[in-house]
Amino acid sequence: MSLIVMKFGGSSVGTTERMGRVAQRIVDKKLQGDRVVVVVSAMGDTTDDLIDKANDINANPPAREMDMLLTTGEQISVALLAMAIHKLGHSAKSYTGWQAGIVTEPTHGKAKIADISPERIFSSLDEGHIVIVAGFQGRTEDGEITTLGRGGSDTTAVALAAALKADVCEIYTDVDGIYSTDPRVVKCARKLDEISYDEMLELAHLGAAVLHPRAVEYAKHYKVNLVVRSSFTNNEGTLVREEAQMEQGIVVRGIASEKNVARISVMGVEDVPGVLAKMFGALADHGIDVDIIVQSGVQDGKADFSFTVSMADRAKALDVLAGIKAQVPYRDTTYEEGLVKVSIVGAGMVSNPGVAAQMFEAISSVGVSIKMVSTSEIKVSCIIAAESVQEVIRALHTAYGLDTTDTAFVGGPSERR
Amino acid sequence: MSLIVMKFGGSSVGTTERMGRVAQRIVDKKLQGDRVVVVVSAMGDTTDDLIDKANDINANPPAREMDMLLTTGEQISVALLAMAIHKLGHSAKSYTGWQAGIVTEPTHGKAKIADISPERIFSSLDEGHIVIVAGFQGRTEDGEITTLGRGGSDTTAVALAAALKADVCEIYTDVDGIYSTDPRVVKCARKLDEISYDEMLELAHLGAAVLHPRAVEYAKHYKVNLVVRSSFTNNEGTLVREEAQMEQGIVVRGIASEKNVARISVMGVEDVPGVLAKMFGALADHGIDVDIIVQSGVQDGKADFSFTVSMADRAKALDVLAGIKAQVPYRDTTYEEGLVKVSIVGAGMVSNPGVAAQMFEAISSVGVSIKMVSTSEIKVSCIIAAESVQEVIRALHTAYGLDTTDTAFVGGPSERR
Repeated sequence: MSLIVMKFGGSSVGTTERMGRVAQRIVDKKLQGDRVVVVVSAMGDTTDDLIDKANDINANPPAREMDMLLTTGEQISVALLAMAIHKLGHSAKSYTGWQAGIVTEPTHGKAKIADISPERIFSSLDEGHIVIVAGFQGRTEDGEITTLGRGGSDTTAVALAAALKADVCEIYTDVDGIYSTDPRVVKCARKLDEISYDEMLELAHLGAAVLHPRAVEYAKHYKVNLVVRSSFTNNEGTLVREEAQMEQGIVVRGIASEKNVARISVMGVEDVPGVLAKMFGALADHGIDVDIIVQSGVQDGKADFSFTVSMADRAKALDVLAGIKAQVPYRDTTYEEGLVKVSIVGAGMVSNPGVAAQMFEAISSVGVSIKMVSTSEIKVSCIIAAESVQEVIRALHTAYGLDTTDTAFVGGPSERR
Repeated sequence: MSLIVMKFGGSSVGTTERMGRVAQRIVDKKLQGDRVVVVVSAMGDTTDDLIDKANDINANPPAREMDMLLTTGEQISVALLAMAIHKLGHSAKSYTGWQAGIVTEPTHGKAKIADISPERIFSSLDEGHIVIVAGFQGRTEDGEITTLGRGGSDTTAVALAAALKADVCEIYTDVDGIYSTDPRVVKCARKLDEISYDEMLELAHLGAAVLHPRAVEYAKHYKVNLVVRSSFTNNEGTLVREEAQMEQGIVVRGIASEKNVARISVMGVEDVPGVLAKMFGALADHGIDVDIIVQSGVQDGKADFSFTVSMADRAKALDVLAGIKAQVPYRDTTYEEGLVKVSIVGAGMVSNPGVAAQMFEAISSVGVSIKMVSTSEIKVSCIIAAESVQEVIRALHTAYGLDTTDTAFVGGPSERR
C-alpha cells in the first residue's frame, strides 16, 4: 500500500463540476488501495476576489489580517471537496493548515514551514479516511495564522509528502507535464518524461509557472519524488527527481522566458569597498527582488553596473537609489523597460563547453541583440527586447535539438557543440 | 476604564461602506477610553451563499464539513473589519473562534460553548489593540472546528462578555431596541427602556428575532448586562438585565408572534404510563422541536392530545408517529397548518390574576377563535389562524395599554384587570 499526496490547484477545482471530477479522481486512487492525502488551493479566482475586497477597505492592509482573510479560500475548498467525496460514498476529512500540524515561522504573507506534526493526519488515514489539507497556510507556534505566499500550496504538498514519507507527491495542474519550452510559443515543444530538481528549479525560477520554486527546493532537500500531471487527462506526467535520465545528445533540457523585466543601470559609482553591499542591501530592505547583476569593469575609480528587476518594482528601485545617493555616490541612473529574460537550462551543460556560445549564435542568427548575459552551472540567461522573444525561443528550441519530431535530431546537437 | 463587548450582525457589515461605519463606531468607543472586544457575524448573505455552494455539491453534506465551510464567513468578516479599523489609524487584531480560546462541546452544527480561555484576548487588550473575534464558532478539545448554530454570534458575544467580566455587552442590530411588539404590525409599538432576562427569553423564543434565546440564557446565567441597539443610529437601545424596572400599570411587557405553526393531534392513545415519554422521545430523537403540548383528559382509557411543531417539521413528525404506532398504539392523527402563535409576556403577570382572561376577551372581541392555549409564569400563548394575526396583535397591544401615545393610558390597564 502506497501513501500518495495529490495536490490540486485552484483551476482544477474552479467549478462545482470540476470539483466533482477531482473527487472522482481521488476516489479512484483510494480504490487502488493507496492511502491518500490531498492538498487543495482556493477555488478559481477566490484569492483574487478576497484581495479585491481587502483593497476596497484598506489599500494597505496589515499582513496579519491578509493572512486571516486569504486562508479562508483554501478552507472553503477543502470543506467542499470533502463533501464531494462523501457524495461519492467515501469518507474524507478536511483540515486547515493549523489542524494538519503545519507550523511556520512567525512571518505573515510568505512564511516558511518550520515543522509538520503529522500525527493527526496519520490517525485519520488509519481510520480509513481520505485526508484533505488546506494548502498555502499554517500557524506559528503562538497560534497566529500564516500563509506561505503565492504557490504555497505546492510547498504544502511537498512538505507534507516529506513529513509523511509519502511514496510520491503528484501535482495536478492545467498542463500535462513539464515541457521543453512553452508549447503555446513553440508548437513542437516536447513533454519531458523526467527532469532533475536543479533543472526544474531553474525553469521554475525562470517563469515556467507550473511548479513553485520553493516547492522544488523542498522536494530536492527531502528527496520527494514529484510528478507533474494534468488534472483533466490521464496522460503520464513528468517525474521530477534527483538524477533525471539524460536523453542521448540532449544538453539543454528546456527553454524558459520571463516577461516584464526592467534594466536599471547605475553609472559612475565610486568604487569603494562595500558600495555594492550598501546599494543592494537597500534594495532588499525595500523588498525589491533584484535578478541579474552585471558589472563590466572599473575606470578612473568609478564603476558602471546594471541590474534587472520586475517592471512593477522599477519606479520603487529608482526611488531607493535616489534616497541613498548621499551614502553611495554615483553620477546617474538610466533604465529600460519591456525586456524579457530568455534562459536555457540543462544539467548536461556543465560537461559541454560551448553551449553559451551556441545560444548567442542562435539569437544573433535571428537578428536580435543581447542586452545582458548571466550564466550559472546549468543555465544561461540573456536579456533581450520583448518583441523578439518568440522567434528567439523557436530558434533556440531548434538549435538545441528539442523539437519533438524525430527528424529534428538529424544532424542534431552534436554537430553544433 | 470599562471593558465593552460590541456585537455586530451580518447586515451591519454587509457592504464595504457599512463595514467602514462599524469601524468608526468601534474606534469612537475606544476613544472614550474603553477596552473594546468586538464580535462579528458573516457579512450579509455570505452564510447562505456558502450553504448554496455546499448543496450544489452534496445535498446532504457531513456536519463536520459544513462547520469547516461556514466558519470561513466570520473569519472573512473579522479580517476585513480589522483592516477597516487600521485604515482609521487604530490597531486591531482579529481572532477566529479557536484562537480566541472558545472551546465547545464536540457536536457539529450547534455546539454549546464549554469553556473560554480569555488569556490571549486579555494580552491583546493590554497591548492596546481592539480585539475582533469571529462569532458563531469555536473548537473542540480535539481541535475540531465547530459552529454554535444560527444566532450563534450573539452567544459568542455574551459568553465572551461573561468570560472577560465585561461591563456591558452591546448587541448592534438593524432595529434600535426591543419593542412591545413588531412595529411593522403595530405602528404605535413602544420601544422598551428595559426588560428582564426572563421576559426577553420568552420574547426571543416567540420569534422576536432580535436576540437569540441561547444568548439570553447565557446572559441570565452569568448576569451579563445586555444592550440591544441600532448599528445605524445613536439612539439609546433596550437594556436587558435581571430585574427590569416596571412601568406604572404595565403588566404585559410585550407581544410576540410566531408564524408557520402546525398543529398535530393524536387521537385515541392508550393511556398507559410512559406513553407520552415514548411518543415525544421519538419526536425529539428525530430532531423535531415540539412546542405547545395539550392534553384535555382521558375517556375510556384513551386520551387525545395535540401539539405544535413548525410547518417544516409537520410531515416528518407524522412519519415518526406512523413509525411508532406498534409500540404506542393510537387510533388516528389529524393536523392543521397555517397557524400562528401569539403570546403576551410580562414578569408582572405573576402577581396580576386575570391577565389570561383579558387576552381571551381581546381575541374574541375581534371575532377570532382560539385553537390552543398554553400558559407559563410570565407568558400566555394562543394558537390562532394566521390570517387574523395582525388585528389580534393590535387589539392586544391596546388592551394591555402598550400603545405609545399618552392617551392610550386613559382608563388604562387597571380597569381591565
